[in-house]
Amino acid sequence: MPKIVVQVMPKQDLLDPQGKAVAKALERSGHPAITAVRIGKRIELHYATAPTDAQLAEAKKIAEGFLSNGVIEDVVEVSIEQD
Amino acid sequence: MPKIVVQVMPKQDLLDPQGKAVAKALERSGHPAITAVRIGKRIELHYATAPTDAQLAEAKKIAEGFLSNGVIEDVVEVSIEQD
Repeated sequence: MPKIVVQVMPKQDLLDPQGKAVAKALERSGHPAITAVRIGKRIELHYATAPTDAQLAEAKKIAEGFLSNGVIEDVVEVSIEQD
Repeated sequence: MPKIVVQVMPKQDLLDPQGKAVAKALERSGHPAITAVRIGKRIELHYATAPTDAQLAEAKKIAEGFLSNGVIEDVVEVSIEQD
């Protein structure tokens, strides 16, 4: 069943300590090409039937108002994904 | 600069209490069409130059071995994303 996927990331200019820790660990384990890591959320919204365009528009509002914190996070994508 | 995006989700048959809580909150706030919510991670790997196919292959290994816990999580996507 298709679902709506919402992707949320910490804002560019905010520190992301979890990402920084992973970046350092990757550098230590032999991956110097990776200069930075940022960690955000992938949220799947499942529906009983294939989501409509209206539900996608609604999901965008839910993503901005409910699934993310606009002070520290950006919604980077809201899209319908096939299974 | 293009980056590699790794997407990780809790395994299908595992309980996702955070997702369940969000699903219930959405139902209460007037979104009954959403039957389930699952919450995973979106991890961005940044490079100094555009990532190569070899780096994408390496990122897939990093995603499986380091960025996800194979016992409870699935890597659902590893892809290069343009900015």
